Amino acid sequence: MSGLSEVLARLDQCAATSLSELIEFASIPSVSAQPAHQADMERAAGWLMERFKRAGLQTVERWPTAGHAAVYAEYLGAGEDAPTLLVYGHYDVQPPDPLEKWHTPPFTPTVRGERIYGRGVSDDKGPLLLTVQVLDAYLSTLGRLPLNLKFLFEGEEEMGSAHLNELVAQNAGRLGADFVLSADGGMWSASVPSLTVSARGLAALELTLRGASKDLHSGRHGGSVHNPLHALASLIAGLHNESGRVTVPGFYDGVADLTPQQREGIRQLPFSDEAYLNQTGAPAVYGEVGYSTLERQWHRPTLEVNGLWGGYTGEGSKTVLPAEAHAKITCRLVPGQEPERIAQLLRTHLERRLPPGITLQIHSSDHGARAYRLPDDHPGAAVAREVLAELYGKPPLDVGMGGSIPVLETFQSVLGLDTVFFSFAVGDEDIHAPNEFFRVPRLYEGQKAWAQFWWKLGQQKLAERRPS
Amino acid sequence: MSGLSEVLARLDQCAATSLSELIEFASIPSVSAQPAHQADMERAAGWLMERFKRAGLQTVERWPTAGHAAVYAEYLGAGEDAPTLLVYGHYDVQPPDPLEKWHTPPFTPTVRGERIYGRGVSDDKGPLLLTVQVLDAYLSTLGRLPLNLKFLFEGEEEMGSAHLNELVAQNAGRLGADFVLSADGGMWSASVPSLTVSARGLAALELTLRGASKDLHSGRHGGSVHNPLHALASLIAGLHNESGRVTVPGFYDGVADLTPQQREGIRQLPFSDEAYLNQTGAPAVYGEVGYSTLERQWHRPTLEVNGLWGGYTGEGSKTVLPAEAHAKITCRLVPGQEPERIAQLLRTHLERRLPPGITLQIHSSDHGARAYRLPDDHPGAAVAREVLAELYGKPPLDVGMGGSIPVLETFQSVLGLDTVFFSFAVGDEDIHAPNEFFRVPRLYEGQKAWAQFWWKLGQQKLAERRPS
Repeated sequence: MSGLSEVLARLDQCAATSLSELIEFASIPSVSAQPAHQADMERAAGWLMERFKRAGLQTVERWPTAGHAAVYAEYLGAGEDAPTLLVYGHYDVQPPDPLEKWHTPPFTPTVRGERIYGRGVSDDKGPLLLTVQVLDAYLSTLGRLPLNLKFLFEGEEEMGSAHLNELVAQNAGRLGADFVLSADGGMWSASVPSLTVSARGLAALELTLRGASKDLHSGRHGGSVHNPLHALASLIAGLHNESGRVTVPGFYDGVADLTPQQREGIRQLPFSDEAYLNQTGAPAVYGEVGYSTLERQWHRPTLEVNGLWGGYTGEGSKTVLPAEAHAKITCRLVPGQEPERIAQLLRTHLERRLPPGITLQIHSSDHGARAYRLPDDHPGAAVAREVLAELYGKPPLDVGMGGSIPVLETFQSVLGLDTVFFSFAVGDEDIHAPNEFFRVPRLYEGQKAWAQFWWKLGQQKLAERRPS
Repeated sequence: MSGLSEVLARLDQCAATSLSELIEFASIPSVSAQPAHQADMERAAGWLMERFKRAGLQTVERWPTAGHAAVYAEYLGAGEDAPTLLVYGHYDVQPPDPLEKWHTPPFTPTVRGERIYGRGVSDDKGPLLLTVQVLDAYLSTLGRLPLNLKFLFEGEEEMGSAHLNELVAQNAGRLGADFVLSADGGMWSASVPSLTVSARGLAALELTLRGASKDLHSGRHGGSVHNPLHALASLIAGLHNESGRVTVPGFYDGVADLTPQQREGIRQLPFSDEAYLNQTGAPAVYGEVGYSTLERQWHRPTLEVNGLWGGYTGEGSKTVLPAEAHAKITCRLVPGQEPERIAQLLRTHLERRLPPGITLQIHSSDHGARAYRLPDDHPGAAVAREVLAELYGKPPLDVGMGGSIPVLETFQSVLGLDTVFFSFAVGDEDIHAPNEFFRVPRLYEGQKAWAQFWWKLGQQKLAERRPS
């Protein structure tokens, strides 16, 4: 372990630099969903490539897609007999809206106490960057790594990784590995180490309802033509029943109920609704009747309206009967649900319930993903459990993830690879919301953990991990 | 009638100037609801005052309010025995949103064919301005008028005339008149002269629903806390039943059904749903079962959502479970409904139906007005009928107005005056919507009609009109 201690010592020495690098990286507003940030996306990709080169890698490539480019980098110096990991992460971030809710500007990363605040610091720039810093520490101390590494950092995760499938398929020959180690994901609590073994899938739709061909005066016309906002409210209201269940026919087909083991595992977790409500500020938990909060989040499918708008939304009053109403909807899926089928069921259901006087246009996005479950006996999971147990002094808990990482399916179906989540973000860090933060100590814990993961995996004989 | 012919000839000579004055006036973006346009409001008021002075009036005053100022001007040269009219109009306009739907900029009034396009040209700057132009024509030809005139042009009609009640009460001593002649209102069709004898009232509410105290990631949290957009959709959907009736208990209390005479009158009007759908671009009429389109617009109360918003409404996708959802609601009222009571019934109903996990805040605006009905035997209505019959060669039809003019109630309750609508706007001119327009020939028809109205009323003996 003398080699590893040098690496860890090096990381300690670079602690301040590591943090300032994150500040620099997270100050680039790489918002993939907004075309105005195209140049910033390129800037973030370029920044990452530079960082890989400074760490000592020679093979550092910009992989273009029809959307935003991915950054690829590789270290194959450990030879063919050594294990090979594909490290995944994403350098794009969510839009920062609503801007007025941020206490400090989203792209001026700011350290307050043990936290750094800024868009993307937790999802996924902090957890991603630390893997490059560990690479640097290995190469600058030992001059080599005990395993081969392929880094694939994409720029479209927050848009549903629309072009990654194609990119991975095109480069399948170069992306071969034993499994994927993901810097994206996140642990469910800061106080308890955990290993994420499942993630929900995703299906997304956008609706546009139209009534009259133009906005009308609600005094003159009110009550005589249909108001698309009323029709939209009825459609949305009709998507759940009073038990919190989704009413779309066929939505739950193929969905297995939780096993007694799953329910027991969740009951043993240190989780309370009270603490959860404190954390979210919600006045009460709410959801499908018959399930606890974590059961709902990890193992039950959902349908959520992410945005709804129409008519006059500005200051003051405008007595308008609007021509259009809009909604963005996403469903979170569990094993047994196919994204395309769910989108189609929803489409059919909405079209059937459309009232007279209103037309409906539905746009299904490519933003779809199947749910994922890591095999119980996966060798990568074993190493992760060992590293986390040593680092935190207690064995990690198996947890689910409510969110979705569409690339899980890409890696599974295109490359045949499982994915082990090894992110040091925590689920309460307000990702996708104002005042996103990352815990600074976890930047350093993550560095240690990744250094140890690579070291331990590198010691294993190939035969132990890779069947024939 | 020789005096009147001179006035009419003068108006003919000034036709081009009259139109260019409207272009100048309507190019001032006097949007009362948006604080950013405060200076434009002052500019519009100043422009009007200048115009009155140029017409030859000496008493031209800016009447401040806690909001936007009103412009007052008077001509009392006809003496105490002559009739006195209070002329009403408003110089403020609706916000121009959505801007992208305008074919030409809203505040660059543009003549295309026989129409002038621009925000406010129909509601109410064209119909208002022509009364000042008629005043000018009288004074520049005859040097006098056959009756006394008091002009009160307010700047808050599009905000519900919030401070007019107070202003009228404070100046009640100066505003005495035989009745109000309103330049606001509008005829229901360009091809058939009409006299508006009723207007619906108004009650307005704004709702804010809150769930969690901050926006949450809809992957991680979806399905475990209530989504305010779902709750809002349910509340809104629950405000109407499948017959298009408002479900708020007590909403229809005191509402009289249409009389057989009203229904027969409406049936005789040259109106077809087909033409109405062509005009509005709606695929079908829709509303309270058991009523025709005009019955719904003129004599039935409504509840309309004017705006609804929450969550991510920008480009692309953002998987957010929002903290807040908002709606702006207005009800149109008929005789028998009190605005405050309706707002209170709605408030109570919404609060009762609020689901767990959501809090509701309701803001009732001052934007309220009772419905109005002009007495059948009103002397001003007789003059209006005579003038319109001569001008258009056929007697005007009695029609209702779906919209509301809160000042009707102010004039009635504070000054004890009835209001006769004498506007030359037409209800299809896309007021409150993009591409609002005014028919240029009706600017000139309106001038002739107002000149004749004043002339005819001036010939009447006071005793004929004013009961001791």
